Amino acid sequence: MSRILSIWVDNKPGVLARIAGLVSRRGFNIESLAVSDTEDTTRSHVTMVVDADEIIVEQVTKQLNKLINVYKVSDLTDADHIDRELVLFKVSAEAAQRGEIIELASIFRARIVDVAANTLTVEATGTTDKLEAMENLLDAYGIKEIIRSGKIAIPRG
Amino acid sequence: MSRILSIWVDNKPGVLARIAGLVSRRGFNIESLAVSDTEDTTRSHVTMVVDADEIIVEQVTKQLNKLINVYKVSDLTDADHIDRELVLFKVSAEAAQRGEIIELASIFRARIVDVAANTLTVEATGTTDKLEAMENLLDAYGIKEIIRSGKIAIPRG
Repeated sequence: MSRILSIWVDNKPGVLARIAGLVSRRGFNIESLAVSDTEDTTRSHVTMVVDADEIIVEQVTKQLNKLINVYKVSDLTDADHIDRELVLFKVSAEAAQRGEIIELASIFRARIVDVAANTLTVEATGTTDKLEAMENLLDAYGIKEIIRSGKIAIPRG
Repeated sequence: MSRILSIWVDNKPGVLARIAGLVSRRGFNIESLAVSDTEDTTRSHVTMVVDADEIIVEQVTKQLNKLINVYKVSDLTDADHIDRELVLFKVSAEAAQRGEIIELASIFRARIVDVAANTLTVEATGTTDKLEAMENLLDAYGIKEIIRSGKIAIPRG
């Protein structure tokens, strides 16, 4: 099962390599990872989605917490939270298909961010389910490239 | 200067740790990193933003290309591309402020994704400039938490 970890760390070279190393030594793969700055320039934030059961993730959380440069690790999976992902789809589209794809995008509240002679690029955000449904529908036109951000999550309220 | 690298790798434990290790040994920090699955389940994609000049990034690109499990590295910075980031802002908001914040969100084409007694959570996508402008305006209400995806990018056309 996928579990979502929210991790605050020092914004220093090497910290990410240590985190990724610790997780990979446990032999399970990182499904997605989103790392970025925070309001506090000395800190970075990591959203990590791993495919592992709760007990193993609990062990990893304890080990992460022991790492110098790691401030806080929360497992948001069972907490009330919102999660979202950003995806850029580049879809094959001759002029004749554009209308249909634009309509599809609008149903999913997605946005057209680029148009070329033979392609349309669509920006979409949502939960994994919504984005998968959209991908399945766009697949009929031919998806040339998909770039995903990986999941980010925030506790509710 | 920030440079955006788009990297395709094997979807295997340890690959990410090796990439992060290589970059951090060069002593420059990773500004943001977005790692996720691709259509091909054996591959993952990494968007990495680093603060370094072109020559150093060129050296790192060569070293990344030599890593086993790395298939392709493109520096998109000078290529015609679209880049976007996803941000979740949790903003302090009593009932009286909600209207203003909802209005602000709509100007930025952002979406309200959660409402609680004292907070509103807003989902926004855009370029770094747009998201910074939005952050500056939301700051007046008090931002309780910001979670960012890091930048993703796709070549145009």
